[in-house]
Amino acid sequence: MTERARQSMLNSENMQPCIQECLNCHSICLTTVAYCLQKGGAHAEAAHVRLLLDCAEICQTSANFMLRGSDQHRRTCAVCAAICEICAEACARMSDDPPMQNCAEACRRCAESCRGMAMAA
Amino acid sequence: MTERARQSMLNSENMQPCIQECLNCHSICLTTVAYCLQKGGAHAEAAHVRLLLDCAEICQTSANFMLRGSDQHRRTCAVCAAICEICAEACARMSDDPPMQNCAEACRRCAESCRGMAMAA
Amino acid sequence: MTERARQSMLNSENMQPCIQECLNCHSICLTTVAYCLQKGGAHAEAAHVRLLLDCAEICQTSANFMLRGSDQHRRTCAVCAAICEICAEACARMSDDPPMQNCAEACRRCAESCRGMAMAA
Amino acid sequence: MTERARQSMLNSENMQPCIQECLNCHSICLTTVAYCLQKGGAHAEAAHVRLLLDCAEICQTSANFMLRGSDQHRRTCAVCAAICEICAEACARMSDDPPMQNCAEACRRCAESCRGMAMAA
Repeated sequence: MTERARQSMLNSENMQPCIQECLNCHSICLTTVAYCLQKGGAHAEAAHVRLLLDCAEICQTSANFMLRGSDQHRRTCAVCAAICEICAEACARMSDDPPMQNCAEACRRCAESCRGMAMAA
Repeated sequence: MTERARQSMLNSENMQPCIQECLNCHSICLTTVAYCLQKGGAHAEAAHVRLLLDCAEICQTSANFMLRGSDQHRRTCAVCAAICEICAEACARMSDDPPMQNCAEACRRCAESCRGMAMAA
Repeated sequence: MTERARQSMLNSENMQPCIQECLNCHSICLTTVAYCLQKGGAHAEAAHVRLLLDCAEICQTSANFMLRGSDQHRRTCAVCAAICEICAEACARMSDDPPMQNCAEACRRCAESCRGMAMAA
Repeated sequence: MTERARQSMLNSENMQPCIQECLNCHSICLTTVAYCLQKGGAHAEAAHVRLLLDCAEICQTSANFMLRGSDQHRRTCAVCAAICEICAEACARMSDDPPMQNCAEACRRCAESCRGMAMAA
């Protein structure tokens, strides 16, 4: 194995928890879209569903950059952290609804992990 | 240029109209999701929004397979044709709504083009 | 909760193992793309890298259809099973290379799970 | 039509040129991946192919945010502009190769359009 390949594998190991948070947040946001559309009312408002779709997609993109071992992953992690934070707040506001709290929690954990990755030296 | 590279470029030219139909249908379906969520009512029913999201995603995947010059593009074109057809019918049923008719038309054109690609020798 | 929402949740539970296999196969295929590009030679041949990219993308699409609870998920699972099978065979042929065997195994498991989902009543 | 729906459509019209640049850059980058893998040598170096895949994916994500009419599209446009710029420079360095110059040009146009969108009031 070349030094470069070895380095890339080390990097990947550092990234593993953040990749997992992104994939997890992506999955929960898409499942939550289906839940919100079926619930209707405030859950299905255009801005809310759109935000969940945005969050799912940027998590997927951010995970894919890390999985490819891309040099540019800090940029996608930074924007992923920002959007996850906004989505966490929107979901947390639906305070008496366990699936929404579950989604808020996944977004918050992903935001924190991506923020750490974006600021890593 | 090798014979294989030349062949791949010829293939790409044959694929160009189908790639364009897929990208066009993808764009219109995503725009229609936003429109349907804002309209509410039958437009925003879970099954309908989900079908538009499905159609947008399989069009994107199908376009990407052709853009990469993948040997497997006939498989993704076949499933894209089937889903576009179903989405076209669902949108066409909202018969007094021009944006939905516009979406139905884009889905129908994409279905036809993908069907042709899927059956090409 | 409506009967329909309850049904959708039951479906999601049935789908959970297949979603996991798709997400896992997607992740391993993208990581393997990076590995193959760095190794060069036969690993980095256009047809091989392309097949890994195809497999990663159809796994992602197939997972997303299930996560949305889409009625059309059997179609995407069927094409996912076929492409995973082809990718598994291509990776298995690089028989003295543990990362490729690991990728072949993930593809084979995903193919089997998606085949089951595609044929479910 | 509600005021909000009307506003959203006006926004979409403003976004149309940037959406087109993103979709165009995405398509050319993916086609260029296939070209580079077939050419081999410096074209197929891991870092270069990865950058083209990164650029294709962030263009797709950025287009999708605008197509959905997302409030968060400025964030994805900003990171898209940065990555397109880096990809344009990498492709422009292969100065005697027309397909690479063509890709550099598409990346540069997309970077400029996304930069404008990211900074819009």
